[in-house]
Amino acid sequence: MESKSNFKAEEEDPEAIVWAQKAWALLSSVRAKSPLIQCITNFVSMDLMANTLLSAGASPAMLHSIEELPDFTPQVHALCVNVGTLSADWLPAMKVAAELAHNSGKPWVLDPVAAGASGFRLKACLELVELKPTVIRGNASEIIALANASVGPTKGADSSHESTDAVESAKSLAQSSGALVAVSGAVDIVTDGKRVVGARNGVAMLTKITATGCSVTALIAAFVAVDQSHVLEATASALSIFGIASEVGMKLAKGPASLRMHLIDSLYRLDEVCVLSHVKIGSLS
Amino acid sequence: MESKSNFKAEEEDPEAIVWAQKAWALLSSVRAKSPLIQCITNFVSMDLMANTLLSAGASPAMLHSIEELPDFTPQVHALCVNVGTLSADWLPAMKVAAELAHNSGKPWVLDPVAAGASGFRLKACLELVELKPTVIRGNASEIIALANASVGPTKGADSSHESTDAVESAKSLAQSSGALVAVSGAVDIVTDGKRVVGARNGVAMLTKITATGCSVTALIAAFVAVDQSHVLEATASALSIFGIASEVGMKLAKGPASLRMHLIDSLYRLDEVCVLSHVKIGSLS
Amino acid sequence: MESKSNFKAEEEDPEAIVWAQKAWALLSSVRAKSPLIQCITNFVSMDLMANTLLSAGASPAMLHSIEELPDFTPQVHALCVNVGTLSADWLPAMKVAAELAHNSGKPWVLDPVAAGASGFRLKACLELVELKPTVIRGNASEIIALANASVGPTKGADSSHESTDAVESAKSLAQSSGALVAVSGAVDIVTDGKRVVGARNGVAMLTKITATGCSVTALIAAFVAVDQSHVLEATASALSIFGIASEVGMKLAKGPASLRMHLIDSLYRLDEVCVLSHVKIGSLS
Repeated sequence: MESKSNFKAEEEDPEAIVWAQKAWALLSSVRAKSPLIQCITNFVSMDLMANTLLSAGASPAMLHSIEELPDFTPQVHALCVNVGTLSADWLPAMKVAAELAHNSGKPWVLDPVAAGASGFRLKACLELVELKPTVIRGNASEIIALANASVGPTKGADSSHESTDAVESAKSLAQSSGALVAVSGAVDIVTDGKRVVGARNGVAMLTKITATGCSVTALIAAFVAVDQSHVLEATASALSIFGIASEVGMKLAKGPASLRMHLIDSLYRLDEVCVLSHVKIGSLS
Repeated sequence: MESKSNFKAEEEDPEAIVWAQKAWALLSSVRAKSPLIQCITNFVSMDLMANTLLSAGASPAMLHSIEELPDFTPQVHALCVNVGTLSADWLPAMKVAAELAHNSGKPWVLDPVAAGASGFRLKACLELVELKPTVIRGNASEIIALANASVGPTKGADSSHESTDAVESAKSLAQSSGALVAVSGAVDIVTDGKRVVGARNGVAMLTKITATGCSVTALIAAFVAVDQSHVLEATASALSIFGIASEVGMKLAKGPASLRMHLIDSLYRLDEVCVLSHVKIGSLS
Repeated sequence: MESKSNFKAEEEDPEAIVWAQKAWALLSSVRAKSPLIQCITNFVSMDLMANTLLSAGASPAMLHSIEELPDFTPQVHALCVNVGTLSADWLPAMKVAAELAHNSGKPWVLDPVAAGASGFRLKACLELVELKPTVIRGNASEIIALANASVGPTKGADSSHESTDAVESAKSLAQSSGALVAVSGAVDIVTDGKRVVGARNGVAMLTKITATGCSVTALIAAFVAVDQSHVLEATASALSIFGIASEVGMKLAKGPASLRMHLIDSLYRLDEVCVLSHVKIGSLS
């Protein structure tokens, strides 16, 4: 019962088939183009995030120094900003990088980890949202905190809400910010403020591995990097592909640490047959 | 010959049976309550520490920014402070968090990594000890350095003493600081300055995996969080449970990296039968 | 086709046999002496680097605070400086540590990660080169950037050149800096500016695991620590030993994450028969 998906096979649905083909095409494109993804991210996630990007075929660059951004950020294919271990001395570089990416026409993705955990953190996240992220990906509690601009009871990086509780918050945040908003959970929700799409791949044990949420945000950056004109499709596909890697990995896993290993191995090895038969993306509205 | 334990089966000893039941009850409580554990820790350990907490059922929060502490620390169930990659810009937040935890009645645990490696580090550790940690866990060299307030020959984070060499230092430090003191080693020693208890679970290969000591300190924080009124029992139990996970993992391991994986998987999966049959805790005085 | 080595068996060549014996003798010496290796390195690599050193028998110390360096650095057996996640606040400590190591007669090794990624980074790397590193290890793009003192098109930490493209740059850099220069790649190149030696162990999938380059630099530091008078031999041997561990690990690996695990396990377990039969080091000029 680890799988999130328990409805009728989407693969019989024409829309579902189109989604599966998109997801495979985007993964293939990441592998072929190897986009350079700059990550300004928390200390906990750096290792898994870099390995997620590498195993998907992208090229990670964990570079956060403000002195380097004017030279470097305009060269990357996408930027991922994650506030997990936020501090006052890292925040200015996050903002400058976001502005450089935006001004260079490069997509950038925001992961507002634990957005409601403190007033300082919420303010920082709201300031980053002002800098026009292409995508915002969080868990339900984070998206609700951002949408409401309110500090709330927190479980740190863990969510105390279901993703489906956050649909209206996600739509509202997408409309006010102009960003595509993704909410991870048992069903991953993706919305541009009008359309709402659900991705139902993944296993529950992912919540027992630190930095899996952070890593899927970086994967979204890689997918958006190779198809900037279809941000919603790229985001839903990245969420689905990461989820599929976890489903395949789960078959061999005996716990969270072996799942982490098999997840990365699976992401590296995913082939067309596997992707086409596993993708579970569909419209929710 | 990797196991530390080679005496008569404690399970025939009534005291040992009580200890085993306590350890299982505490692990069950961590799983049921999922305490939120704030970790201000070194960069090396963040990944393994967070995954250790998650696999034990706790919820980690790696949050170190001084601006966030007044909002966040009073909400957590326990705090873990680890000075491994200490720097002048992180120390103030460690102190503020310790004070906030203490003033909020929340337990906090200090890991004085490499306490004797430099004058700066020793001074910082002694200042943190003044802030009333609930538990101090180190290796023998670290506890001796703290008890003697002296810089000494160092192997970095590795110990150049046996834990049993540090019993008197541990008792002395417990008495002067008011903290429960735990010394990791072939036998893990726990003392409140009067009672001395030994936990004999674990495998020698743990010393070949970075951050296992840091991670068990965080696990102590989780155990103390769910039973603040029995700090000695919670600390000895956490040390034993982590050691048991390594013993179970060792059966499948082919080296330090696979042990690390199987350790976390085992910690996630430990059941009552396994815990009751493996716990090796007993009075040493 | 993952193996880098596809020429005639070097083990029939007397020079190759001598190299294999050197490599084994050096690994044995690291295991016996357990040198203390201080690492001032990027956040991404800390975990794998520390575990690489531990599995090889060395003792890592991830200590970067400028306040501690005068007490600590003179006690270590070697220093590793890696600029991966460089920032203005870490650079002074890198320089002070390098000077302390040099003035204490301790070897130090520089890893100029992504040297050409920005003007700030290139300048920092060139300043570090001025402080007399014993060894500089980079990929081809990094060594070319340093030798030419020029910022160039970058793939972050990934190379856009083959190691064999960088032989002349490596020789030139070795001559101008006085350092032994190592270039990682399909063939690892080592030169003191006159002699050029190639090490052909390793597997292609290493490039899909973050921080493997950083980790081999730390391993070089450990090898040089135990034989300061033969820096070229120690460097070539460390590169070969790490490569052999990956070759052995590759037999069990199903992707980058399991390779990472088996690599560390293999490094821990390498025995004389395996080392003597796998070392592929030979003169290139």
